[in-house]
Amino acid sequence: MTSLAQTPRTTPRRHPERATHDFDAIASVLDEALVAHVGFMQDGAPVVMPTVSWRMDDHLYFHFGAHSRFAKVLAGGAEVCVTVTLLDGLVLARSAFHHSVNFRSVMLFGVAELVEDEVHKRRSLDALVDHVVAGRSAVVRAPDAKELDLTAVLRLPITEGTLKTRSGPPVDRPDDLALPVSAGIIGLTTVRGELE
Amino acid sequence: MTSLAQTPRTTPRRHPERATHDFDAIASVLDEALVAHVGFMQDGAPVVMPTVSWRMDDHLYFHFGAHSRFAKVLAGGAEVCVTVTLLDGLVLARSAFHHSVNFRSVMLFGVAELVEDEVHKRRSLDALVDHVVAGRSAVVRAPDAKELDLTAVLRLPITEGTLKTRSGPPVDRPDDLALPVSAGIIGLTTVRGELE
Repeated sequence: MTSLAQTPRTTPRRHPERATHDFDAIASVLDEALVAHVGFMQDGAPVVMPTVSWRMDDHLYFHFGAHSRFAKVLAGGAEVCVTVTLLDGLVLARSAFHHSVNFRSVMLFGVAELVEDEVHKRRSLDALVDHVVAGRSAVVRAPDAKELDLTAVLRLPITEGTLKTRSGPPVDRPDDLALPVSAGIIGLTTVRGELE
Repeated sequence: MTSLAQTPRTTPRRHPERATHDFDAIASVLDEALVAHVGFMQDGAPVVMPTVSWRMDDHLYFHFGAHSRFAKVLAGGAEVCVTVTLLDGLVLARSAFHHSVNFRSVMLFGVAELVEDEVHKRRSLDALVDHVVAGRSAVVRAPDAKELDLTAVLRLPITEGTLKTRSGPPVDRPDDLALPVSAGIIGLTTVRGELE
């Protein structure tokens, strides 16, 4: 079991029992998710950009238009925080205070790098298409040179970060258990429709 | 139709046709979503924190533990970017390059304020419970004084931001249309299970 090095900002102060630095656990959330929220500073203020993300080995990948301001900031070595969140359920307690949500959320810190090598870039874009629909990269037209130039692929090493998880039923205060209120979990599932 | 003031950072440079500053359109996305990603600077580096969010009138609300470092940074007047993203579908084109996702994403900028007035704070926490399950605040036990103290409620004015939307089928390059590849949209829906 490989574990990410723990740093001050990845050391949980609240609910440490919900946090892990285990690489495989982090990777499984990154592999299930489609969207990451990428945070960085731009002109002195924070920006949180949603984008599709995918994992290859020990890096999380994402892409932007090559001419976008975001790609330029990130390729320039800006510090980023990338957060990937899966919402698994609503936790309904008998008191307002003990309501919660079941979730799995990975937060990664570091500096992303531009993927410039053409073979690596093509392989990573294939992995993106396959992340969305398994096996699809083999049947679609691959990027031509111009399309490749229009795409900035970035990758962040999975070296500093945590996975936080909440699961299970509500935890009610003992003297609330007799209240005449329904309680429990409402599961949330993302369902894919048919191709239309 | 009320519209948010447009500022340099909310003026889209790419795909301006996908952006709007219309308040009602922005509000409808905030009302449908459960999770926001709150970005801010902490100790000189960006942090992106997932949290449940809900809207009341012209503010987006969220809450943290009152003793959390995040609550302190945000209540201290830090600039934030709050992004709320709904993923509506996978857009499968005949070329890798023209793959996309259908989404609605609101990005708000500003400074959050702590909700300190007790009546306002209680009303906002009722709105949170009702945002998760309509009408539920009337049947659960309301927070006692200690629980109220343990909760920091923050709100961000909905005054600077944009909604970006992509919808509809893939846009293939004309000479790709004859390729023997299936294409179209796979809708994504979040389904709520039964209370367990």
